[in-house]
Amino acid sequence: MDRNHLSPSDFIGVQGKGIISFGSGQPDLPPPELVYRILPTYRDFRYGTVQGMPKLREALAREYPRSEAGNFVITNGASEALDLALRAIGNKPGKKKSLLLPRPYYYSYPPLARYAGMKPVYTQLVNGRIDFDDFEEKAHQCRAMLINSPSNPTGRVEAIPTLRKIEKIASDLGIYVISDEVYKDLIYVRENYLIQGPHVVTINSFSKTYAMCGLRVGYLWSLDREMVNDIIGMKSHTSMNTNILGQEMAYEATKVPKSLVNSQIKIWRERRDIIYDGLSALGLELWKPEGAFYVLPKVRRPRDFVWNMHKKYKVITYLGEWFGAPERVRFSYALDKEKIEEGLKRVKKYLESG
Amino acid sequence: MDRNHLSPSDFIGVQGKGIISFGSGQPDLPPPELVYRILPTYRDFRYGTVQGMPKLREALAREYPRSEAGNFVITNGASEALDLALRAIGNKPGKKKSLLLPRPYYYSYPPLARYAGMKPVYTQLVNGRIDFDDFEEKAHQCRAMLINSPSNPTGRVEAIPTLRKIEKIASDLGIYVISDEVYKDLIYVRENYLIQGPHVVTINSFSKTYAMCGLRVGYLWSLDREMVNDIIGMKSHTSMNTNILGQEMAYEATKVPKSLVNSQIKIWRERRDIIYDGLSALGLELWKPEGAFYVLPKVRRPRDFVWNMHKKYKVITYLGEWFGAPERVRFSYALDKEKIEEGLKRVKKYLESG
Repeated sequence: MDRNHLSPSDFIGVQGKGIISFGSGQPDLPPPELVYRILPTYRDFRYGTVQGMPKLREALAREYPRSEAGNFVITNGASEALDLALRAIGNKPGKKKSLLLPRPYYYSYPPLARYAGMKPVYTQLVNGRIDFDDFEEKAHQCRAMLINSPSNPTGRVEAIPTLRKIEKIASDLGIYVISDEVYKDLIYVRENYLIQGPHVVTINSFSKTYAMCGLRVGYLWSLDREMVNDIIGMKSHTSMNTNILGQEMAYEATKVPKSLVNSQIKIWRERRDIIYDGLSALGLELWKPEGAFYVLPKVRRPRDFVWNMHKKYKVITYLGEWFGAPERVRFSYALDKEKIEEGLKRVKKYLESG
Repeated sequence: MDRNHLSPSDFIGVQGKGIISFGSGQPDLPPPELVYRILPTYRDFRYGTVQGMPKLREALAREYPRSEAGNFVITNGASEALDLALRAIGNKPGKKKSLLLPRPYYYSYPPLARYAGMKPVYTQLVNGRIDFDDFEEKAHQCRAMLINSPSNPTGRVEAIPTLRKIEKIASDLGIYVISDEVYKDLIYVRENYLIQGPHVVTINSFSKTYAMCGLRVGYLWSLDREMVNDIIGMKSHTSMNTNILGQEMAYEATKVPKSLVNSQIKIWRERRDIIYDGLSALGLELWKPEGAFYVLPKVRRPRDFVWNMHKKYKVITYLGEWFGAPERVRFSYALDKEKIEEGLKRVKKYLESG
């Protein structure tokens, strides 16, 4: 590990005695039992259709408006859904090659844009939310925009009027919208607002809601059938069907009662309060998370903070720089409250020491 | 389904009463029991490392010369390994942007090259094998070459002296070699010859050897650590870890005795003989398969053949055109011998009818 070239892959999956990881964004809660109850007798390991298991797509269609199974593609996590959507959009003919990205952003967005031959154009968040005037001005030069509400890393949720204005401008200008809504079931302040429109591609996942991160089952939804078909054609060469057993487990997850999902919100909100109050009490400037499970406080000398917290205090945090927020560090609070509290004690010690 | 725009995705996964599918390349044999014996008690669904499960990579390292776990990346099937390798090579700086491809080729190669910003340059196979003079001449203009021995769709295996010459020219010219060896355990005529060199990326898979197609676990191996690191960096954004349960099952597969794998060769050879002798007896011109499980006979009016065999005779075959062989059709003989024989009877009827 090199102090001057830290990256998330230095920390992903790092575990060990006494380590408290506020690093990767992974629920610590176990998946619902329904999800793995099928394992003992499962036996079909043959290719599936590239678009994804029909019964899984049919189950999803019941959750989305004006939809049928044909509007979905099941992918290797939300990551592959994003990658395929960006590549498909990047391959379209046309001069505009820019992707509008609110900043701070999830760290994979800029490289995925570049891999797809698109140039990221940033609009700076103000107080953790989209500044619509700046957003609108920059949208004109872009082929697509990427929205992520609730946001990783800010934990913020966009106001519904802002999302409505984004829908309108996208539709008026004929711009693609990629809406990464993987935290749709983890909002503390309201129901999720599903962004809609003729050229919207919504990205989602079973990872966060059902604690199935390692199984890598995500999906995309779009009413733009041409886009869906482009993506299926591409996926038939780039990865073929998504792991068939993961899809079967995701199908079981669709049967989990919503009440179970909603009951977890209570746990997440309690954790949110502990970390938000704790970091605030330490004098750090931060936005109050309204969804997902991240906080992004300002700290002095963030690289020293991340390095020393890890090396001296066995606490993993992520550099805000990776997310386009160089003055900040990211904490994921997907940990039980005892660990969050212990982690906060160590942060306090560090801050007092220097 | 449109007669004039047929594609493999019209046929992948198509099953039904009375249908005989010589279509997709999927073993009909079940996976070894070892592979799924872990399912009943498996419970860890968290993120894994992007590069792949260490114990799986360590097991692979014991099968490859001069290797350690760091030389491998576990991927979503061989498809993702190919896609990542091509994208990583395509992203390197330099003027040459061409990929040398022997033709007929596996149908995903040209689109994957284009998605990666590379231009396919073809060298025509002669009697199903590489014409080294033409190959060598074209290699000079290329950044990379893609070798597939045993080949899908030809079923041919390259002569070892040819492979040695390819290793030398690649090394002399500093050209990347992608060697797709997914059929390495399905060769009737000799042991596999592992192509080696400083910039070789070998693509492999658990799909064919262990009948695990739907689980999508493949891998790549390279002694070029910079390339391996580029690919891990890319995969950390494009899909993260490969399905964790699939990897665990692949690890179990590495414990399957080689004798079991080798005993399957006998079954494949018997099938090869039935289809080769059968199609030859019908007067079709074809190359004798030496590996994999495909034959690529010449037929008159291939589109009529594929369409009518499917619609009137319930036999699925693939258009040679998809593989760069417009005068031919591809049969996969991953079927039990009774089905192969029944399929051959129907082909005979069709040929006699018109």
